[in-house]
Amino acid sequence: MEFPLLAWSAQLHTDSFDVLDERALPEKVVFVTVRNYVDAVDVIRSMKTRAFGQLLTVLYALMITVRKASPENLRNTVIEAADALKISRPTFAFAKYTDLVVRQTTTALEQEGSDPAGVVERSILGLLEQIKAMRLKRAELAATLFEDGDVILTHCNTSGELLLTARMCRMQGKELSFFATETRPYFQGRLTAWELSQDDFAVTLIPDNRAASLLAAGQIAKVVTGADRVALNGDIVNKTGTFQIAVLAKRYGVPFFSYVQEPGKTASGNEVTIEFRDSDEFTVFQGIRRYPDWAQAFYPAFDVTPNHYISKLITFNKILHPSELPDGWE
Amino acid sequence: MEFPLLAWSAQLHTDSFDVLDERALPEKVVFVTVRNYVDAVDVIRSMKTRAFGQLLTVLYALMITVRKASPENLRNTVIEAADALKISRPTFAFAKYTDLVVRQTTTALEQEGSDPAGVVERSILGLLEQIKAMRLKRAELAATLFEDGDVILTHCNTSGELLLTARMCRMQGKELSFFATETRPYFQGRLTAWELSQDDFAVTLIPDNRAASLLAAGQIAKVVTGADRVALNGDIVNKTGTFQIAVLAKRYGVPFFSYVQEPGKTASGNEVTIEFRDSDEFTVFQGIRRYPDWAQAFYPAFDVTPNHYISKLITFNKILHPSELPDGWE
Repeated sequence: MEFPLLAWSAQLHTDSFDVLDERALPEKVVFVTVRNYVDAVDVIRSMKTRAFGQLLTVLYALMITVRKASPENLRNTVIEAADALKISRPTFAFAKYTDLVVRQTTTALEQEGSDPAGVVERSILGLLEQIKAMRLKRAELAATLFEDGDVILTHCNTSGELLLTARMCRMQGKELSFFATETRPYFQGRLTAWELSQDDFAVTLIPDNRAASLLAAGQIAKVVTGADRVALNGDIVNKTGTFQIAVLAKRYGVPFFSYVQEPGKTASGNEVTIEFRDSDEFTVFQGIRRYPDWAQAFYPAFDVTPNHYISKLITFNKILHPSELPDGWE
Repeated sequence: MEFPLLAWSAQLHTDSFDVLDERALPEKVVFVTVRNYVDAVDVIRSMKTRAFGQLLTVLYALMITVRKASPENLRNTVIEAADALKISRPTFAFAKYTDLVVRQTTTALEQEGSDPAGVVERSILGLLEQIKAMRLKRAELAATLFEDGDVILTHCNTSGELLLTARMCRMQGKELSFFATETRPYFQGRLTAWELSQDDFAVTLIPDNRAASLLAAGQIAKVVTGADRVALNGDIVNKTGTFQIAVLAKRYGVPFFSYVQEPGKTASGNEVTIEFRDSDEFTVFQGIRRYPDWAQAFYPAFDVTPNHYISKLITFNKILHPSELPDGWE
C-alpha cells in the first residue's frame, strides 16, 4: 500500500532532503530543503514538520551528515548532529534514535571495513524500512477494531496512520467516516481533513469544544488518536486536548484507541517533559494577531492521558488494553 | 457602579444609535451607527454585537423607530420593525421584548393622550433602566458565591456581568483571577480577557481543549458562564462548548454557575432552536481561510446544558439549584 504524504513527509536526495511544510497545508503542498542538521533542527522546532515527520527528519539529517562527514571526523560529526537533533523539541523521544545511530557509527568505525559511513547509512535506511513495515502492520491491526459504518472522532493528526487504517478497512468492505477536531492552537484538524478527503472519506471538522455534544448524542462509535509518547503503564502523551476527549469518551461509554510506539523506559506519563511553546502560536495566525499583546495564554503543546481512560493501545504488533501490557513490553 | 462597555455596548442618540463592533475588539474600539431596524438586524445577524448587546440593539432600534414614525402609522411601523428584529437570530428570545413594545404601542394609541410615541419611548427607557438594575443586582448576588483567591474558569463572554461581579468581590476584599477559554469559532475569549484585564484582573487564555487538564489538576475553584436562554427546568442554552465544560466540571467536582434571565415559557433546553451559522465563520478568520473550500464543518452556535450539570443558577433575584426553581419562576 502506497504511503500517504503525511505518513512519509520527506524525500531524500544525495546530500539534502526535502521536508513537507505542514504549516502551508492544505492550501499549498510545498517542501523545505534541509542541507544539514541545523536546518533540520529549525524545521522541527518551527513545527514545519511534526509527529512522524520529525523522526524522519532526524534520521534523514543524520544520514546526510554521515554522507558529508570527512572519514576522520565521522564519529564527532555524528555526535554533534545527534546532540542538537535530540533536543530539538523536548517531548518526543528522539534520543532513542540518535543514540542508536551514534552507537552504529562507533561500531562501524571499530570494525574492519573500508566504508564505515556506508555501513551507517545502510543501517539508517534499514531502520526506516523497518519502521515503515511496522507502521503498515499497526494500521492493519487497527483496521480490525472498526466495523462498516463506524463514525470515528479523531484529534490532531496521526501522520497518515488513520488514513492507512481507513484504506485497509475499505479494502475489507468496511467504510468509515470521520469527525476531526480542529485542534487548537495549531489547527492540525486541517491536515486530517485534507488527507482523509483526498481519499474520498467523509470528514467533518468540529471546534474542540464540540466533542462532548457529539459523544453525548451517540454520534460517535469510536475515538482514535495518535500518541507522541507512550509509557510502560500505558499512559499516553499527545497533543493538548487528547486528555479531555478521552475523559468525555469514557463518560459516554465510547471506546478510546491510540496508535502508540515503543515505550522506552518511561514508567508513566508524568515523567515526560511537556513542551511549552511560544505564545505567538496561540495568539497569532498567519501574521494576524487574534489577541492583544498583553494577553497571557496557557497552552502546553501536549497533555497526559492516564491509562484508565484508554480502551485499547494499538502497538506495532498487538492490540492491548493497558492492563494487559507485558513488563517492559519490547 | 459604572457599567462596563460590554455590559452596555450601545449609545443612543436622537434618531440613531451607535453599537460597539465586538468583532473589532480588542484591537479597536469602534462603533457602528444604526439608523433603522434594517441596520439593527444586520449588526445582530453579522454578530457585530451579540449576547446582551443584541437585546440593547433590538430595544434601541424600536425606540428610534417609534421616534421617527409618522403618528398615523405608528402601530404598523412598530410591528414591521418588531417582526424583523425578533427573527434576526433564532436562539435568543427577542420576541418577548418586541411583543411587549408592540403591546405598549397599542395601549398608548388606545388611551387618550397627545403623545403616544412619547409614552412608548418612556416605556422602553423604563424597561432598560429596570434591566440595568436587575443586572447589577444579579452581579451582586453572584459575588456571594466567590471567595478571596478563587480561580474562575469561564467560557465565551458574559457581556460585562462577570466583570461587574469581580468588581463587587474586590470591593468586599475578595480578589478573583480567571482562566478564559478562547471560545471557538468566534474567539469571544478575547472579549473576556480584554474587559477583565482592563480592570487589572489576572486572566489567562486557554484553548477550548485545555479545560479538562485544569479541572483535573485542581486549578479551578468555580466555573461561571452566561446563558443565552434558560428553561423552566433549569437547562441552559449557551455558546457551543458550555455543555462540555459543565460535564467536565461535574466530573471533577467543580461547581458550575450560570447567569440566567427569565425562562419565559420554555419548558426544557431541547425546545430551543439552535442556530447553525455560515461555515465561513469557522473556516475563515479576518479574511484568511484556514481550511480548504471543500471542508465540511459542524458548529452549531449554541449547545444545551441539562440542569443536572448546573450547581447554581444566578437569576435576577435569587441563587438557586435547578431543583429549587419554583413553578413558572416569574
